[in-house]
Formats: sequence, C-alpha cells, structure tokens
Amino acid sequence: MIKISIDAMGGDHGPSVIIPALAKVATRRTDIRFIIYGREEVVRPELAKQPRLAAVSEFVHCEVAVRMDDKPSQALRHGRWKSSMWKAIEAVKANTSDACVSAGNTGALMAMSKFCLRTMATIDRPAIAALWPTARGESVVLDVGATIGADAHQLTDFAILGTGMARALFGIDRPTVGLLNVGVEEIKGQEEVKEAGRMLREANMASMNYQGFVEGDDIGKGTTDVVVTEGFSGNIALKTAEGTARQIAGYLREAMSRTLMAKIGYIFAKGAFDRLREKMDVRRANGGVFLGLNGIVVKSHGGADADGFAAAIEMAYDMVRNRLLDRIEADLDLFHARNPHAAMGRPAAAVEDQE
Amino acid sequence: MIKISIDAMGGDHGPSVIIPALAKVATRRTDIRFIIYGREEVVRPELAKQPRLAAVSEFVHCEVAVRMDDKPSQALRHGRWKSSMWKAIEAVKANTSDACVSAGNTGALMAMSKFCLRTMATIDRPAIAALWPTARGESVVLDVGATIGADAHQLTDFAILGTGMARALFGIDRPTVGLLNVGVEEIKGQEEVKEAGRMLREANMASMNYQGFVEGDDIGKGTTDVVVTEGFSGNIALKTAEGTARQIAGYLREAMSRTLMAKIGYIFAKGAFDRLREKMDVRRANGGVFLGLNGIVVKSHGGADADGFAAAIEMAYDMVRNRLLDRIEADLDLFHARNPHAAMGRPAAAVEDQE
Repeated sequence: MIKISIDAMGGDHGPSVIIPALAKVATRRTDIRFIIYGREEVVRPELAKQPRLAAVSEFVHCEVAVRMDDKPSQALRHGRWKSSMWKAIEAVKANTSDACVSAGNTGALMAMSKFCLRTMATIDRPAIAALWPTARGESVVLDVGATIGADAHQLTDFAILGTGMARALFGIDRPTVGLLNVGVEEIKGQEEVKEAGRMLREANMASMNYQGFVEGDDIGKGTTDVVVTEGFSGNIALKTAEGTARQIAGYLREAMSRTLMAKIGYIFAKGAFDRLREKMDVRRANGGVFLGLNGIVVKSHGGADADGFAAAIEMAYDMVRNRLLDRIEADLDLFHARNPHAAMGRPAAAVEDQE
Repeated sequence: MIKISIDAMGGDHGPSVIIPALAKVATRRTDIRFIIYGREEVVRPELAKQPRLAAVSEFVHCEVAVRMDDKPSQALRHGRWKSSMWKAIEAVKANTSDACVSAGNTGALMAMSKFCLRTMATIDRPAIAALWPTARGESVVLDVGATIGADAHQLTDFAILGTGMARALFGIDRPTVGLLNVGVEEIKGQEEVKEAGRMLREANMASMNYQGFVEGDDIGKGTTDVVVTEGFSGNIALKTAEGTARQIAGYLREAMSRTLMAKIGYIFAKGAFDRLREKMDVRRANGGVFLGLNGIVVKSHGGADADGFAAAIEMAYDMVRNRLLDRIEADLDLFHARNPHAAMGRPAAAVEDQE
C-alpha cells in the first residue's frame, strides 16, 4: 500500500482537474491510497462524482490555500501549519503519507518543504529534478531552478541525488552521469564543475557510471541518464528546450495548414501526427521532483490537465515503490565514507544553512 | 565596395566548400570583393573553377593552416603572423578588408582576434553573438560562449554590443533588449544580473528599449530582439535548443515513415515539409559574430556547407554596410558619458585584461 498526500488547491485549475486526475490513477494502481487536503466546499463536490476514488481516499478540510502568486515568504507566513500545501507536506513528515504532490507555486512549495522536511543530513541544498524526454527515452536533469549557483560539493550531491532518481524510475543499476559544461577548449568550464568532475571520477561509485562533461545538445540526445548542473543554467536549459519545442510545433501547424496539398497530407498522416504530438507532449514528463529532503515532494506544472497531474502522481508512486530515499541515503553514506574530505571540505556557512 | 577577408582553410571541408560559397555570394552582391587566404595547392584549383569569383578576388598564399583541433595557445604559437586565419584577421586590422570570415576553430579564432584586433576601448571582454531563429523572426543572443561568467558591467557591455548588431542586421532603430534570468520569485537571479538590469534601466538609452528580465522560453518566442546573458548559460541555451530541434526532427522523420498512410501523407505534404525543414535549418542563421573587438569577425560553423558559409559572409557584409562598429562606438560613448560610474566602477584587473 502506497499513500500519497495531495494538495488539491494548487495549480491553475484546482480540484476540478486534480480530483479527476486522482480518479484516473486510482483505477490504474489498486494499491494506492490518497489523503486529500483542500477546501471542503470545492473538493467535496468533485469527490462526490468519483465514488471509486472516494473509497480509497481520506479528505481533510483546510481553511487556507496558498495562492499561485504568493511569494515564498508570504506563503510561509499565511500558510504554515494550516494550508492544504503545508498539510500535504506535513503528512510525509508524520509518515502518514509516503510522498506529496502539489501543483501549487514552486517557490512556496520548496520553502515549505525545506522548512517542514529539512534537507538530508549531508545535503546542503535541495535540487529540483526534471524528467527530460530524449531521443533515447528519458533523462534526469537537475538542478532546474531550486537555487542559483552550486559549488563542487553541491554538484556531487546533485549527481548522487539524480542517480538515485534514475535508478528508482528507469530500473538501471548504474546510470550514466554527465556534468553539463561548455566545450571551449582550454578555458573549458567553471572551476566548480571541473572540481566536481574530479571528485566524481575519484569516487568511482558502484551505483554511478560517471561519464565526464556533456554539452547542451547532449541532453536531447540522451547521452547520459543523468545530467547535473547548477540551477541557473539548468533552468535556462529547461525553459529554452520547452520554448524551442513550442516554436517548432508552431512551425509545423503553420506548414500543415497553408496549402490544400498539405491539408490533404495531414489527413493521411494524422495518426503519425498524433503520435508525434504525444512524443512532444510535456505532460508525459510532468513534474519537478524535489530531491535532497527527508521526504518525496513532486511539483506538477500549474497548468497541467488531469493526465499531466496523474503522470506526476505516478512518478511519485514509482519513486516510493522503488525506495528512492533509501537508495539516496545509502549512496550518500558510501560517498562520504570513502570521501571524508568531501564532507569536511564543506564551508561552515553552507552547513549552517540547514538550520 | 565592401571587402571581406576569408580564411579558406577553416572548417571541416576547407576550400572545397568555402570557394563555392564565395562564388554564390559574388553573384548576389556585386559590390563585394574578397581577399582569400590559404594554401595555394588546394585553393587555386577551386578558384580556377569559379572565374566570376576569381575576377573579384585576390588570393594570398599562406603556408600554415590552423587545425580544427588546435588549442588556442597552440594556434597562437604556430599560426601567429603566418597562418591563413591570422592573415585574414590582420587584413581587418590593416584596413585592407572590412570584415573577416572563418570556419576555423572557435577558440583559436577568438584568441587570434583578441590578440590582433584588441577589444574596444571601454570593453573588458568580447562576446560571441548568435542570430537565433524565433517564432517572430530572429533575435541576437549573446554571449554564447566567449567567456564564462560576467559581472554587471560586462553584461551592460554585451547589451550595447547586441543592440548594435540588432540595429545593423534588423534595421530597427531601438531594439528591445532582455536580460536572461530565472523566474524564481524572491531569489530571482544573480546579483550581477539584477545590477545590470538597474544600470540599463537608469541609462534609458535612445538606441535601446530595455524590457527587463526574460526566461529561457522567451528566446524561441522572440520576446525581445536581443537576449543578454553570460557565456556559460548562453552556450548551454544555444546547444540545448539545437539539440531539441534535432530531436524533434528525428521524431518527425520517424513518425512520417512508420505507416503507409503516413508515407502517403508525407508525399502530399512534401512542399510543406520542405518549407518546415528550411525554417528549422540552422544554416540560415549560421555564424557567431565576435563583438567588442576593433573589427568585425564572423565565425561560421565548422560543418557548414556552401549555403551556410555564404550566409555567414552575407551577415558580415550587412554589418559592414550598416556600419555596425560606428553604431556600437557611439552607443558606448553615450552610455559611459552618462554613466561615468559604470566605467569607474570596473575592477582594475578587468581593465588590465585589455593589455
């Protein structure tokens, strides 16, 4: 039995999309149970339409809902202890649930998750990991925007966190890992990236196949199962790829509707276009995973529809079932046992950040 | 009359692609003249096939050719004073040519260009600008990899350089400019980016319409005519977009060849697909422009074909004709006259870099 706590008030559409999403998942995964947090007057009517879901769910009324435009500090001030977002996270801390899923605003969800769950013992900062569709399948890319900048220690932490996620989701024993860098001969890369590369190579971990530096175009190729970078460039890479995909989809639509011949061609090839659309569909890889915390929190896109939110839940489900946190903890212990200097070398300020 | 100096030995294919490219341009632009630098035994035979080109070109034999895998320091050691790459750049310095185009390796070309042409008086570091195809047309994105990291002063320099290029190439009086950032509420952005934003807003230049921060997906949308960022994230954005475009082209090819219906549809829509391929074609926007130097240097993709190399030459031609360097110099003077603190605030080490 896997229990998932749901913030039903997040996202652009709230319970009207989230409850149908839960209903989809409940029919596909029979060993799942939900604890749904939200405002009674909007959640109850939706839940009443889904008797099968209601039978495997518990509902908890929360007076407060974090707004999509709340700043993290506002959200913490108004929403701590009592909002649906906070309660859904707190259920993970209390072991009432195994993972939390919210489509609420990223900044607020991260601030509350850090405050409530805290980072793992040897982790300075959490990261947000994205599941990136590639020519070969999918890769884990992190950090895509939890924090800006990362030193070598934080980059090695991200590598271990991402490796755990790839092992849990892809069923690979020893995922390949690359550090994102730029290929400019001698001046190649930032010192932090070079140092992280040295540390990962030396560690030579049984659970991680470190491959060296990769470049921006390697992400789409699927050159490695895990791509590690700091949050500024990771966020820019993710958004740039989304923008490019949307731009090309626009070109394609325009090209297929311009002439009669193209329109006829479109009718014949409609099945192929539908499959293509599915491949390019961001919903299939919906959700950023917060890694490095004492609990699993998945952030769904705010604009996700029921299929998108369902995909985010199923990702959380898979990570719980494949014991993501245990894997990460074991890898961190191993890494720090073999590399005591790695933990010792951490600046004191960064360690204090955890408090 | 516009004179372009050509390094005929650069690129994966050398003179066999570069000479036909020059021939294409020579028929389209009748007021262009070329000075071609390269090894006699490989350039002469190609040139002999193109009598119209030969009539508007001067050829200079150079014993040395910089190799594609030379490190910048190697290239400088072996190729300074005598390689075709160096000679083509030197022609710009000597005012024998108005701009230089090479498909040689980026690191070597940048090292030689800096050494030979030097940076403009108030510029710390040159940038590489890319012409990026967008849903609206094209945008200038810089720096895409000349150097890693940039402080606020360097980012404002890049904004002025990119604005000059957009004015010269797009014929817009007051291009819109955005600073690339990540949209994470309160912790939004690096200090350098915030400070650069303040400086550009205060400067309120007549030639630049500063719009504030943009995110990765704004590049493909064409939200602003110019997108400014430091070289690490700029290079990752560029390569990630190229990777995504290639990935989707692969999906499309696969989808259109999988079923008979799709194949029939493809035949009907072939014209539309050809137009689409043209739109997605990186050759159309081939070439990185080195900005901030006392001369125009355009780097063509090493793998470019004749059309791609021709596009790079025509970009150089347009920038010369529209007096790119004069525009940039005027803008820099204006900016520093109004913002003396900007020049004064520069760290001494950065100024020394120019020597």
